[in-house]
Amino acid sequence: MKNLDTSLYFITESSGFTEEEFLYRVEEALKGGVTLLQLREKNKTIREYIDIAKKVHAIARKYNVPLIIDDHVDVALAIDAEGVHVGQDDMPVSIARNLLGEDKIIGATTKTVLQALEAYEQGADYLGAGAVYPTTTKVKTVLTPTETIRDICNAVPLPVNAIGGLNKDNMDILNGIPIAGICVVSAIMKADDPKQAAAELKAKEICLAAHGVIRRR
Amino acid sequence: MKNLDTSLYFITESSGFTEEEFLYRVEEALKGGVTLLQLREKNKTIREYIDIAKKVHAIARKYNVPLIIDDHVDVALAIDAEGVHVGQDDMPVSIARNLLGEDKIIGATTKTVLQALEAYEQGADYLGAGAVYPTTTKVKTVLTPTETIRDICNAVPLPVNAIGGLNKDNMDILNGIPIAGICVVSAIMKADDPKQAAAELKAKEICLAAHGVIRRR
Repeated sequence: MKNLDTSLYFITESSGFTEEEFLYRVEEALKGGVTLLQLREKNKTIREYIDIAKKVHAIARKYNVPLIIDDHVDVALAIDAEGVHVGQDDMPVSIARNLLGEDKIIGATTKTVLQALEAYEQGADYLGAGAVYPTTTKVKTVLTPTETIRDICNAVPLPVNAIGGLNKDNMDILNGIPIAGICVVSAIMKADDPKQAAAELKAKEICLAAHGVIRRR
Repeated sequence: MKNLDTSLYFITESSGFTEEEFLYRVEEALKGGVTLLQLREKNKTIREYIDIAKKVHAIARKYNVPLIIDDHVDVALAIDAEGVHVGQDDMPVSIARNLLGEDKIIGATTKTVLQALEAYEQGADYLGAGAVYPTTTKVKTVLTPTETIRDICNAVPLPVNAIGGLNKDNMDILNGIPIAGICVVSAIMKADDPKQAAAELKAKEICLAAHGVIRRR
């Protein structure tokens, strides 16, 4: 298993920001303590995606935080990112593993234990499970009960992150579920102060971990 | 330079067909004499794209016709297709070449001599130039004058294919322009008999080539 700190996994959302604002916010989030960074772009051409990915990668490297590319294995290969994240409609984990090799990080979105077991068997390094709450960053959100997230955590020997509308004020719903961390988008991206938002999420997580809730690996 | 017969380059369009109808039409086109095949899917998820690409690849192999994947270098890598085709918004040719290696076929869409020279310098194997006529398969079509297509043919030592609304009744506009072949979508895809349509286009092309119009390599 890779030595991977998924405890505060920040997924970017660039829409509504100028490139300068976007990159500033990403860097502030990294300063605040983000441990894993995902670039997720839905409305860019591949050429634009590669361009912004190179810029985000340069920033992430300064903080020694791995950069994960959402969905686009071609973009990940193009910029030699640390990994990719694939959903159930994206490239199967097994093919992504073949193309990326053993050293790269591959994460998968899973909504059921069956999907989690499949992703594990195909070589995923971590899982995202949710959505815990409705989210504004996806058009249609299918909620996953926290009980299912617990089952996923117990079914596979991988770090499992909860995702979906999470922020510091509502994450207590995960109390007692052995997640490895949380994924957030808006809670940092749309915060007045992304650095402070990341730091507060991190503090809250450390507090939960101290109480044995978050599984440390 | 690769030994590449681009004389009748068929670009697929699956919308409006069942998968069975689509695959049948692709195979009929191959029987009719298509020399190069491109799978172009704009509305599929990556998982669906990979799935249909595998099926089309299996058919193309039977006729020993190279399969080119439009835009998605990840899909091309996933199914080990013979090549990719990239537009000006897609992955730059130089990066695609790095990822695919020397043996794979890389084509590029070019609308100007400058773009053609850039694609050539970055390692493209062939170029598509157009659109000659307005086309129904793209929402916005930017026309390229035949004079520019001629200039592109003369500027780079690569096979250049004309594209855009071409069919057997209107391709005479290309008389005297040293193209290596034509790209067609609707002229085959929407034909009553795709095999016959391909054969007729091929006969027309051979006729043009006999008159020294199409550059044979």
